[in-house]
Amino acid sequence: MSNKRKVLALCGGVGGAKLALGLSHVLGDDELSIVVNTGDDFTHLGLRICPDIDTVTYTLAGCVNTETGWGRAGETGEFMASLSALGGEDWFYLGDKDLAMHVERTQRLAAGEGLGEVTQALSRQLGVSVPIIPMTDDTLATKVEVESDGGSIILPFQDYFVRQRCEPKLKSIHFVGQETAQPHPKFLASLQDPVLDLIVICPSNPFLSIDPILALPGIRGILQKTAVPVVAISPIIGGSAVKGPTAKIMAELGLKMNSITVADYYQDIVSGFILDRRDVGEADAIRQIIPRVGVAQTLMQSLQDKIDLARETLDFVGLDV
Amino acid sequence: MSNKRKVLALCGGVGGAKLALGLSHVLGDDELSIVVNTGDDFTHLGLRICPDIDTVTYTLAGCVNTETGWGRAGETGEFMASLSALGGEDWFYLGDKDLAMHVERTQRLAAGEGLGEVTQALSRQLGVSVPIIPMTDDTLATKVEVESDGGSIILPFQDYFVRQRCEPKLKSIHFVGQETAQPHPKFLASLQDPVLDLIVICPSNPFLSIDPILALPGIRGILQKTAVPVVAISPIIGGSAVKGPTAKIMAELGLKMNSITVADYYQDIVSGFILDRRDVGEADAIRQIIPRVGVAQTLMQSLQDKIDLARETLDFVGLDV
Repeated sequence: MSNKRKVLALCGGVGGAKLALGLSHVLGDDELSIVVNTGDDFTHLGLRICPDIDTVTYTLAGCVNTETGWGRAGETGEFMASLSALGGEDWFYLGDKDLAMHVERTQRLAAGEGLGEVTQALSRQLGVSVPIIPMTDDTLATKVEVESDGGSIILPFQDYFVRQRCEPKLKSIHFVGQETAQPHPKFLASLQDPVLDLIVICPSNPFLSIDPILALPGIRGILQKTAVPVVAISPIIGGSAVKGPTAKIMAELGLKMNSITVADYYQDIVSGFILDRRDVGEADAIRQIIPRVGVAQTLMQSLQDKIDLARETLDFVGLDV
Repeated sequence: MSNKRKVLALCGGVGGAKLALGLSHVLGDDELSIVVNTGDDFTHLGLRICPDIDTVTYTLAGCVNTETGWGRAGETGEFMASLSALGGEDWFYLGDKDLAMHVERTQRLAAGEGLGEVTQALSRQLGVSVPIIPMTDDTLATKVEVESDGGSIILPFQDYFVRQRCEPKLKSIHFVGQETAQPHPKFLASLQDPVLDLIVICPSNPFLSIDPILALPGIRGILQKTAVPVVAISPIIGGSAVKGPTAKIMAELGLKMNSITVADYYQDIVSGFILDRRDVGEADAIRQIIPRVGVAQTLMQSLQDKIDLARETLDFVGLDV
């Protein structure tokens, strides 16, 4: 009888969800917990929308749109077309199938269920048995300070990210509610599980997807002190981001676009770091700041790529795979 | 220059909407006001749903499903299928296109707009220029007492009508909020317009669609006293209802299924009554209780049928058509 492994993955949207899917194929349902960023969540048209939770849920349920990495496969847009015709706010795309998730979630939250409870119920309905845990049941909202007419203004994240397509120049990122939002009890329980073997920081945007999780009270301190290996997988491949606004944001924050920057950003909380083989030249520099550095194929196109990276990550800390 | 005519139509869903469409073809936008029953409205999945307003709006906008008489033409059901898969409440069908109406309305109501304001804005977006006025901005909710295990229970209307497909035996109908709900100011203004020429009670269900309008404080009294002709068109054709639960409900309420019953029901408020030519044998009996009785082709299948009945109705009170 083999020993159970216990792995906690911290993740954001598309990139993180891909590794989470790989991990779910390699680990049993009771060996993996996935804690997901909720800083991007917002209320739109009266509906509570949780982009990263949904991306992870759809990815694990096998119903994600694999071309975009988010949203549902075979999605249709009748609702959106009809909403536009009514003069409604149509800058945030809500597909007909996807909409059911937001309506049902909003309904359950209004009835008093917590986001964690709702997420578990709805992901199970879609056949996902791995626990998908929102980082908090409370509100921690990512906001961005952007340049505007020579000065600066604060925008809600989706306003910046979707409505304005990340066009305004980013000056700083803020997490409103970070002093009061409490980590989800299942997140804390997983972090403090005495038999936890590994904490994986998935290849999501460090500043927008992982940092909100780290900003919750106590989390950074626990990660700094834990004896459990904490391994981050760099989201940078070949000196650029696979997708999303990471490159533009890093440039605007005055950061160099490479894995050294990411490693530097995570250095106080990780004991291991995996970068893409295309960036192997950066490995020595990263070894100066992080004890253990691995090199892997981190671009996850096929399911096998995701499983392979999951195996490499477990193997990196000596877990049986 | 011809004189303007001023007509106020009171209506419920499918049958009423058909005559309202006919009237809208015969009258100018500033000659017709349509006041619609909101007793069937309910909040479902967190969304405010107004079945009769939507039926009238879609009918006048030319986007109604002409086979059912309600819902939208070319409707799709991706949302519903997805909601079912999530274990959500799927007993009330919400098409993908139709859903936009409920989401946008709910959003606007939550922002503080009144139902009348919302209805006007959304119907105009769909190209309807005739005023569609909810009978009230307040809540007057139709509830039904039905037999249950030898006793009786009170059900919200849609629960009885849709979820239970009118199967329980009806004992009585109640309008919760009828003491406090105020008629919409535009409804009152139209009723009291000194140049009003005609009030039409459309061929909707008298007990479920018209009675809630009459139950609003003051309305029955105004109709009893007004010098303006009030003309009802019977929803009974050939001794049966065109569609819906009218026949079953009338039987359960101990009422005979004919136009005499409807005329009797309206006798204190109408000065004229139009019944279908198939029921001409009932005309003499109705003349005993209502001063003026007309006979017409009231089955409205084609647009021309609707226009013809609208013309007959105006002609019946001597208005130019």
